[in-house]
Amino acid sequence: MNLLLLEQADFIAADRVVLRDRRLVHMQDVHRAAVGDRLRVGRIDGLMGNAELLRLEAGEAELQISLDQPPPAKLPLTLLLALPRPKMLRRVLQTVAAMGVPRLVLVNSYRVEKSFWQTPFLEPEAIREQLILGLEQARDTVLPEIIIEKRFKPFVEDRLPALTQGTLGLIGHPGNYPPCPRGLDEPVTLAIGPEGGWIPYEVDLLANAGLQPVQLGARILRVETAVTALLARLF
Amino acid sequence: MNLLLLEQADFIAADRVVLRDRRLVHMQDVHRAAVGDRLRVGRIDGLMGNAELLRLEAGEAELQISLDQPPPAKLPLTLLLALPRPKMLRRVLQTVAAMGVPRLVLVNSYRVEKSFWQTPFLEPEAIREQLILGLEQARDTVLPEIIIEKRFKPFVEDRLPALTQGTLGLIGHPGNYPPCPRGLDEPVTLAIGPEGGWIPYEVDLLANAGLQPVQLGARILRVETAVTALLARLF
Repeated sequence: MNLLLLEQADFIAADRVVLRDRRLVHMQDVHRAAVGDRLRVGRIDGLMGNAELLRLEAGEAELQISLDQPPPAKLPLTLLLALPRPKMLRRVLQTVAAMGVPRLVLVNSYRVEKSFWQTPFLEPEAIREQLILGLEQARDTVLPEIIIEKRFKPFVEDRLPALTQGTLGLIGHPGNYPPCPRGLDEPVTLAIGPEGGWIPYEVDLLANAGLQPVQLGARILRVETAVTALLARLF
Repeated sequence: MNLLLLEQADFIAADRVVLRDRRLVHMQDVHRAAVGDRLRVGRIDGLMGNAELLRLEAGEAELQISLDQPPPAKLPLTLLLALPRPKMLRRVLQTVAAMGVPRLVLVNSYRVEKSFWQTPFLEPEAIREQLILGLEQARDTVLPEIIIEKRFKPFVEDRLPALTQGTLGLIGHPGNYPPCPRGLDEPVTLAIGPEGGWIPYEVDLLANAGLQPVQLGARILRVETAVTALLARLF
């Protein structure tokens, strides 16, 4: 945790918060914080700044807050991701938040196992928990927007073209395709497939919606690694 | 597992192997392989190719092997990494093997907890297990060289200059430094610090050995994510 993220409900005054949950435990056990210490804090979807620890008791801590810095810029990106297996999903959500992706669409694909859609990690509170871990890691305050699309074809045919409009549309896909471009400034819509990749029919539908395949070389990467590698190369 | 990796001991003839371990279980449970099926295989530190499943019984499988393709090229890189916490170490070893790093030096740092050096995950067999998982994922056969350096100063002063010679030396380090370069062809020596980063004294010693700090932006990334992001950007 490189940034202590504050929720609306933590505030007892405009510049005071009281913490009682895992963040208190983290301050005590990891930071070994003491009264008078200063910590980096941020308000969810708001500014970042500093806090002074005013009071630390067994069950709660009170901090005085000064928020004056904007969070870091997000990437100009919509990321479209075939739903990963549950354990990978949690890590990918953290990575997406940490890397500065502003909008993630989790979509079905032929090679997504049906059982993956049943995971409790897709509940809004579970998603939010992982996103917050990613924001705390990277020092950001703004939660990415997560869109869940359980049906591939209606999403890609009816809604994806509007998301893609005015952006460079790319599919990260192993094969004999042009190499993934580097160091872009323009907005991008990027689709990353499931383990085993999109099937040709899906690549065709994505291409009809304006996305073109690009490749990163012969190595097959895990989804989490592919997300990080593609974003680091694109921006 | 996108490539079935074969050990010397698996071979019962020049073109025949018998498998009995987790690879047999994986073929049965994940691939649901049947006699006559063809699989991608590779020989550790050797060529890649195809196998035909000749015989499948409860406790063993026999395959006929044809190896004719070279493994993918490695990156022109020596990666120097402050020893991560044990759980992260395992994932980083997989990532390093999957991304094509040919040589990894695990080194001590002021911010590496002493207990990390006690982990059984640093045993040669445990390291090899994770590297093989990474190679199987990415479809590569060549094990990276792993060097363990428990003392920072003697390593950086006495042995690092020889490793760095003729390469571009870089330290991935958050701060007011030049941005990490993109799309290099030349050989690189890259140092990535622990959680919390190298201390200034360590950066000074690394600089004396020929490594200069570069940054990836304001976001603080987990070690595994930073490794992937830096490699994807550099090459």
